[in-house]
Amino acid sequence: MSQTAGGEPREGGLFLEPPELEGYLGLALKVDRVLFHKKTPFQELHVVEAGPLGRVLLLDGAIQLTTWDEPAYHEMLAHVPLLTHPDPKRVLIIGGGDGGTLREVVKHPGLQRCDLCEIDGEVIEAARRFMPGVAAAMDHAKARVLVEDGLAFIKKAEASYDVILVDSSDPQGPAQGLFGPDFYRDVKKALKPGGLAVSQAESCNFFGPLLKDMFGFLGGLFPLTLYYLALVPTYLGGTIGFALNSLGPDPLAARPAGRRLAGLGRLRYYTPALHRAAFALPAGYREFLSDAMARRQLGEG
Amino acid sequence: MSQTAGGEPREGGLFLEPPELEGYLGLALKVDRVLFHKKTPFQELHVVEAGPLGRVLLLDGAIQLTTWDEPAYHEMLAHVPLLTHPDPKRVLIIGGGDGGTLREVVKHPGLQRCDLCEIDGEVIEAARRFMPGVAAAMDHAKARVLVEDGLAFIKKAEASYDVILVDSSDPQGPAQGLFGPDFYRDVKKALKPGGLAVSQAESCNFFGPLLKDMFGFLGGLFPLTLYYLALVPTYLGGTIGFALNSLGPDPLAARPAGRRLAGLGRLRYYTPALHRAAFALPAGYREFLSDAMARRQLGEG
Repeated sequence: MSQTAGGEPREGGLFLEPPELEGYLGLALKVDRVLFHKKTPFQELHVVEAGPLGRVLLLDGAIQLTTWDEPAYHEMLAHVPLLTHPDPKRVLIIGGGDGGTLREVVKHPGLQRCDLCEIDGEVIEAARRFMPGVAAAMDHAKARVLVEDGLAFIKKAEASYDVILVDSSDPQGPAQGLFGPDFYRDVKKALKPGGLAVSQAESCNFFGPLLKDMFGFLGGLFPLTLYYLALVPTYLGGTIGFALNSLGPDPLAARPAGRRLAGLGRLRYYTPALHRAAFALPAGYREFLSDAMARRQLGEG
Repeated sequence: MSQTAGGEPREGGLFLEPPELEGYLGLALKVDRVLFHKKTPFQELHVVEAGPLGRVLLLDGAIQLTTWDEPAYHEMLAHVPLLTHPDPKRVLIIGGGDGGTLREVVKHPGLQRCDLCEIDGEVIEAARRFMPGVAAAMDHAKARVLVEDGLAFIKKAEASYDVILVDSSDPQGPAQGLFGPDFYRDVKKALKPGGLAVSQAESCNFFGPLLKDMFGFLGGLFPLTLYYLALVPTYLGGTIGFALNSLGPDPLAARPAGRRLAGLGRLRYYTPALHRAAFALPAGYREFLSDAMARRQLGEG
């Protein structure tokens, strides 16, 4: 078989995601149909259909989610911090315009309100139209969906949230500011006492220098910073990382069980055993972690 | 960027690994140089050079290992059972002609002998020539390297090994028999009392029906069968599974520490925390596991 793999998803064609590792490793996706394509003010947006992968959201050519495996990412981003916090009532999602993280957050019975602040309204519209199962909670009574720049929104918030979830795309394009120290100073200020923030934090395999830099400033800013992993087969390398920053509660001391866990219903990925296991990192991640993180997450010293 | 991705690795070209999920998801690899190509009596063998991935061994077009990330697979296949067993002296590797698993096994100070039984002598020769860091232990005093069919070899062994490692390629071509019940009856017979066998067991994402079938007969054959995972970014989906079968020792009760762990030297992937964490599976794996496995590995019941 020999096919042309290109930078634009085409019906019946093989689409090549922009490769990583200096262009040496990439994912190829067979596309049945292009359901939607738009150049928004912020990025190039595609929704395609791809056989058993279901529907796929692409931003600037990078796979954001497939309806086949999206629960892994959304459940681990939401439930790890929400089941670590003793009583999360107010939650903020920055990014996450597809609605998958919001859908998981509103499952928590004690929640009072979840604000979702997405910079690109077209992502929200595309998800509502083409991925109704992902966008299912957009009209939930406890959800407030805002189309606004997260960098500006967070500056106005002060001690407002129990949990903040940064559900961003890669650190190019509109999400760039969400990986820098100024933003995280604002995130810290926006948390209530004892609050937690978790951010999409890429993969050590492909974003080592970025993560080394991030964990450097996060460790100086928050009392507790940890890195944890979820398995997402449709992301290159199959692993996505999350940076967890806490003003108090410790995810490794949490014992998720009982009524709060049962309230989430049947999950596709998260389990209480994985809640802990996700923080056990390969030895080679040592070089990207701060000393405090390595001591806890690699069992050193 | 638009490039031709094809089924044959070519210099300066983009090579597309045979895709999974009905052909909808595949890995693309940029190739600098084809160092070696041979049609052996068993399979098509390539060794290529691919920038930061280093050297890559392909069998019938499927990536077997890259020198960039091979320690994850080899360390987890070898050290999880060897550090679970109280005193492994005799080890057998079936397959594993590249030598990476052997290299990890001979690190264990208490080892008396490790037999390696590879059906395709060309794999051994290619690894010796082009991947000396992987094939490093081929001439080790405790290693005995045999070019022979593992299915025939195992029939002759009786209560001979403390640990058997099945380091195979995918269940097409020469490795097919290594995924069936007849072979595992022979493996059980070849183990000493209290022995363990671990096999490369693909990914639930792409080989669900095969694994459901395998865990079905393994659960009836061995007192303890468990599934565990390692993260290998150059395998499609990023996760490889291992089937662990034990006549006694329980990997989740093992507490690897002290002299035996220190004897392994500096590892790139394995840690004692990962030894346990690797057995915590996503909830969705439920449908591929036996009831006994699900109870232990998903924390059910």
